[in-house]
Amino acid sequence: MIRNRRVLLASRPSGWVTEADFRIEEAPLPEPAQGEVLVRNLWLSLDPYMRGRMSDAKSYVKGVELGEVMVGQTAGEVVESRHSTLRVGDKVLTQLGWQLYGTTKEAMRVDERRAPLSAYLGVLGMPGMTAYFGLKEIGQPKAGETVVVSAASGAVGSVVGQLARLWGCRAVGIAGGPAKCEYVRKELGFDACVDYKAGDLGAALKDACPKGVDVYFDNVGGEIFDTLLARMNLHARVVVCGLISEYNATQPYAIRNWRAVLVNRIRLQGMIVFDWKERYGEALGALAGYFGQGRLKYRESVVEGLENAPRGLIALLRGENFGKQLVKLA
Amino acid sequence: MIRNRRVLLASRPSGWVTEADFRIEEAPLPEPAQGEVLVRNLWLSLDPYMRGRMSDAKSYVKGVELGEVMVGQTAGEVVESRHSTLRVGDKVLTQLGWQLYGTTKEAMRVDERRAPLSAYLGVLGMPGMTAYFGLKEIGQPKAGETVVVSAASGAVGSVVGQLARLWGCRAVGIAGGPAKCEYVRKELGFDACVDYKAGDLGAALKDACPKGVDVYFDNVGGEIFDTLLARMNLHARVVVCGLISEYNATQPYAIRNWRAVLVNRIRLQGMIVFDWKERYGEALGALAGYFGQGRLKYRESVVEGLENAPRGLIALLRGENFGKQLVKLA
Repeated sequence: MIRNRRVLLASRPSGWVTEADFRIEEAPLPEPAQGEVLVRNLWLSLDPYMRGRMSDAKSYVKGVELGEVMVGQTAGEVVESRHSTLRVGDKVLTQLGWQLYGTTKEAMRVDERRAPLSAYLGVLGMPGMTAYFGLKEIGQPKAGETVVVSAASGAVGSVVGQLARLWGCRAVGIAGGPAKCEYVRKELGFDACVDYKAGDLGAALKDACPKGVDVYFDNVGGEIFDTLLARMNLHARVVVCGLISEYNATQPYAIRNWRAVLVNRIRLQGMIVFDWKERYGEALGALAGYFGQGRLKYRESVVEGLENAPRGLIALLRGENFGKQLVKLA
Repeated sequence: MIRNRRVLLASRPSGWVTEADFRIEEAPLPEPAQGEVLVRNLWLSLDPYMRGRMSDAKSYVKGVELGEVMVGQTAGEVVESRHSTLRVGDKVLTQLGWQLYGTTKEAMRVDERRAPLSAYLGVLGMPGMTAYFGLKEIGQPKAGETVVVSAASGAVGSVVGQLARLWGCRAVGIAGGPAKCEYVRKELGFDACVDYKAGDLGAALKDACPKGVDVYFDNVGGEIFDTLLARMNLHARVVVCGLISEYNATQPYAIRNWRAVLVNRIRLQGMIVFDWKERYGEALGALAGYFGQGRLKYRESVVEGLENAPRGLIALLRGENFGKQLVKLA
């Protein structure tokens, strides 16, 4: 008999997440209620925001309770349907979390002929849409401007830089290590990429951005954000999208270059992709259009098996992934 | 024979400004060239930005050179004219700096029947316009929202809170000491005022802002800014107008609550009133309208005599002034 397996939050980490913060268990297969589908999850997306959900600090949504299934976006196949329009065999996007099976009313059918199922969790999913709305609506880049993005080889950053290029800007990435930087330049086609692990980030950014920085898309916060502040042009914009450098810190990083915000009249804005949920169709249309033309490349970092999801999240938080971090569940 | 007197920058301060950083000297009365007026300065405005001009750190305008006359806005009377439209006896606003006389082509005639001359350096001058554009264009308050402003009894802050009230908002000030707080509440009509010297600012703000903070107009930076970040509502706005707490600091303050920007999608923007110079007429019209109706109150802190201008600036930077800081020159 088929049984479900799921990963629960076992304890709240203080500082770095460890595998001991999770517990794996078996459970009976859930039964779909009227209006629901039973979905076999094929892919689980791992994302930096998950670190926040493991904490009980106030955030934009409530954290996961101890003993609950870890949250996460999933892509899978309908195996049983009591839903009016979804059928067995349909491929769907869901929010079923870290488990092999789940029931839901809220599943979005996707077209595997347009893109592989896993791409709907990355370049055509929340990360891609985060890049699209953050850059377009907050960054507001004009052709000829310089756009810098951190975590540039990651799921969001890789799309930010490629969109910046498509929209006529100079795209400069920041990534950790020569392999990621080479990928960002050669495969993704950024104009330059700076290795933050290589030493003097300020000097390297100055070389990579001879006309200064007009838009900084920040996925990391902390010292890299602070260094960028000092390189921003008059009336520059900062998209505050992520703080991965701080998610595991027990002490927040102390920003030192705040004065630049006043001197250069910089605008900074925090963002969460949910704020644009009424416009997801617009973003998916634009991203799928570029994707279909071969102008939006991506890379996946795949961990095999649900039992390895904790290890995958820890690697992601340490920046050890290379591309969109996924767990292949089947 | 009448001679000019002027205050020069003698040395660049490190940390707090001292009187030894200035030197006073006599000089011949300047002669107006064709197209210029000779103005006898009656009032000199002292403003926090002057601390920045004493430094050679990069800022939005170049600093004062050693041995140059200190910069500043002035109000005075035309005593000799080679200008096509200005006449002897006209009252004018000028940028002649810390001196008794000066020549210029750029003098704006003002109407003393509408308001006392000194008011054109405060409530109807750059401070008033800074409040107007910063609150309206960056703060974008909606009726019913809560607006908090620091340095609330000062030239900019006092106008911010009164405009917030006029525009239907709850206005909460932050000021130092019970006398300033009482003035802000009773004379200026703010809904509440918090004394940052009295102890737990976070708790006091929580009491004063039961529905949280929608707009924070920041004139001070540092710890007060940081404390406010943790009290901001979803989609709140921060007007980054001044950093007086840092102007004399040798180490920048380390902001600790930056994560709130992401969680609550806060928008922050640096501002300098010069960015709206094409719209000064609009601001002056609005402010003079409220002023004429008796709905815009102000207070002046007057130092007598040019030789006391350095002492006046130091007092301003220490928060010892109470209202718009002026030097009466004659």
